Amino acid sequence: MYHINKDRFLATLESQAKIGATADGGLNRPALSETDMLVRSWFADQVQSSGLSYTVDGAGNQSAILYCDNPDAKTLLIGSHLDSVPNGGRFDGALGVMAGFEALRTIHDHAISLPFHLEIINFTDEEGSICGLLGSSALAGKHTAQSLQNVRGGAEAFQAGMTRAGLTSETILGAQRDPQSLLGYMEVHIEQGTRLEEANLDVGVVTSIVGVRSFWLNFNGEAAHAGTKPMPARKDALWGASAFVQKAREKIMAEFPPGVVNFGNIHLAPGAFNIVPAQVELALEFRHGDLAILDGMQSVLLALAQDCADEFGLSLTILPVDNILPAPMADSMIGVIERAAETCNLTHTRLMSFAGHDAQSLALIVPSVMFFVPSVDGISHNPKEFTKPEDCVNAAEILLQSVLLLADG
Amino acid sequence: MYHINKDRFLATLESQAKIGATADGGLNRPALSETDMLVRSWFADQVQSSGLSYTVDGAGNQSAILYCDNPDAKTLLIGSHLDSVPNGGRFDGALGVMAGFEALRTIHDHAISLPFHLEIINFTDEEGSICGLLGSSALAGKHTAQSLQNVRGGAEAFQAGMTRAGLTSETILGAQRDPQSLLGYMEVHIEQGTRLEEANLDVGVVTSIVGVRSFWLNFNGEAAHAGTKPMPARKDALWGASAFVQKAREKIMAEFPPGVVNFGNIHLAPGAFNIVPAQVELALEFRHGDLAILDGMQSVLLALAQDCADEFGLSLTILPVDNILPAPMADSMIGVIERAAETCNLTHTRLMSFAGHDAQSLALIVPSVMFFVPSVDGISHNPKEFTKPEDCVNAAEILLQSVLLLADG
Repeated sequence: MYHINKDRFLATLESQAKIGATADGGLNRPALSETDMLVRSWFADQVQSSGLSYTVDGAGNQSAILYCDNPDAKTLLIGSHLDSVPNGGRFDGALGVMAGFEALRTIHDHAISLPFHLEIINFTDEEGSICGLLGSSALAGKHTAQSLQNVRGGAEAFQAGMTRAGLTSETILGAQRDPQSLLGYMEVHIEQGTRLEEANLDVGVVTSIVGVRSFWLNFNGEAAHAGTKPMPARKDALWGASAFVQKAREKIMAEFPPGVVNFGNIHLAPGAFNIVPAQVELALEFRHGDLAILDGMQSVLLALAQDCADEFGLSLTILPVDNILPAPMADSMIGVIERAAETCNLTHTRLMSFAGHDAQSLALIVPSVMFFVPSVDGISHNPKEFTKPEDCVNAAEILLQSVLLLADG
Repeated sequence: MYHINKDRFLATLESQAKIGATADGGLNRPALSETDMLVRSWFADQVQSSGLSYTVDGAGNQSAILYCDNPDAKTLLIGSHLDSVPNGGRFDGALGVMAGFEALRTIHDHAISLPFHLEIINFTDEEGSICGLLGSSALAGKHTAQSLQNVRGGAEAFQAGMTRAGLTSETILGAQRDPQSLLGYMEVHIEQGTRLEEANLDVGVVTSIVGVRSFWLNFNGEAAHAGTKPMPARKDALWGASAFVQKAREKIMAEFPPGVVNFGNIHLAPGAFNIVPAQVELALEFRHGDLAILDGMQSVLLALAQDCADEFGLSLTILPVDNILPAPMADSMIGVIERAAETCNLTHTRLMSFAGHDAQSLALIVPSVMFFVPSVDGISHNPKEFTKPEDCVNAAEILLQSVLLLADG
């Protein structure tokens, strides 16, 4: 039985964490920033000095490729991302790229013959400093000239990043791959939660990456003097919004677990101690891995918002913001990861991913799967983010065994 | 029986409303602005051309005075203000000054001999464009050099206004009057509410101007990923704040009417759709005319805020902002207004004033009273503010009869 080279793997994982390292033990590598450009250059060197093929596509996605003998064979992709959130941690994304790279190097070391090409990929800007899932969406053909003109980081950040990496909107659109050329996609990531740690399990196999819907809810009442207007006569927008926060929270926790709801922002007008609030804008976001249940949550939440508006004599306007569909993982690929975990004598469970990942782009075009290894205390997007070395090793080992299982058919 | 000159009064009321008039029928005369300076100049002319004594004190308070024969007599003050909020209405403040001025002119017309000096006063900046109740507080000796360095409109607005009116901090402090020189204070104002209109009553005699307390409440939880952090494990600051808004509202309405509570502003951090709120700052203000009950409201509200913080695993910090004590009106003066209303065959009730007025400054040093006439639909601080001509006439007539009742001892 083949195994990864643990020492080499952990040393490489350590090396990448020095690039953009912060004084508090974290990482600061926003996509296409100076530090991200440094780690990209380092990764290109690692690939080339390992005797593997190196390519970079029009979206800046970097690949280490081991071609098989059959030029018409499909490609098995393993990926994640080397960029971080500002002042993030050392494992979010980087573990997945490094674990895949170690699995690839092990297969290369042992000259194992595969019936498919094996490609390890560092996707550009998973974290969305410029445009969330930029690289993986480009590969899946999800971008349009239109969508690239309206990225979340703004046109200026987009242009600066593109220039630094030698990319253009045209090259990004050209990064689309033919799904027929791909065999599957696998990704390992830290859990960024505590479910595995609490259950004392080694591996969580993702069944679905949750869909995310968001809305601005505008509760509209009437400004009034906070002294002279008797309370029963007020149309206070904050009364409706706060009732909605309470009731929505209770409803989702009671009827839709493990689905979640969040109210991440609130703006009030006019905004003075002595004026009854006329308008409240409330940011609503909710998530579930099952599309039908996500639709059900939406119906319940928007009806509840209207009820709360009605109760306090308010009008309600609803502005859709985002709608990311749930991305179910492929059963066949889930089975491969579970068998690989068993091969490694590791305990495992199935769970949903409540955060977005590059796998949700890939799931649109190719059978895909993700799995998680534990995060200590669930801390993530934080310099204190930590995953134990043995769990990092498990990540790479499962990827290796999964590739070998797929190779065996 | 003497009566005011209705036609002259309504014409004068109309004339003042042309100065700083806005296209939509309102007034824009923030204190010591160019338009406020114009109306002050107009008022000085009106006083002087009526053959009355005109004075202006170190706080810019303008007075029309009818001296009695006894130089050692006390002074009966009748006042309100000619300044408005930005884009306010024609009646808030101006009615009180004009009604008092008409009562004074009537007494002067008929050469009625009074046993006290009668002084009608236009107080500077009741609305607080620079410093709330600036003029009446100065007369009552409530300012200090310290307090004038930290006015709510900011140092720049203060300096600009002072320069325009030829005032300084020193002259303002010098405007303090000896309480022994004053007999009493009377003020008529529009109700700015609907209690009189709904009860179909002509006059509301104020028993107390409510005390107002305000606090910033800071609910502190923990930021977290709005997907990966399970809802039961969250410390969401908005959960605590919104529960408090709901429960405080219910408690005050159930146990403290006619006391009122308002949450006039809210700030949330970090403030993103996908981040669980870590901090919420909530503006709390509550009002009651009775000091003991106001203290009771404070105990109940702050304990409830702590309960809501505890319920959701949050910490709470409480920052006092303002503490305006209730200003009870003088029973003797309340009786005078009620008898005057009856003399005029007007219906009346007693009520609290839920808004601040110059009378609360005067109540600190001299027996004071206020009364209200109806506001159509309770609209105020708005160009649509309206009080019917007959109610305006009642305001002036009651002031006249009250002066005469006081003169009769």
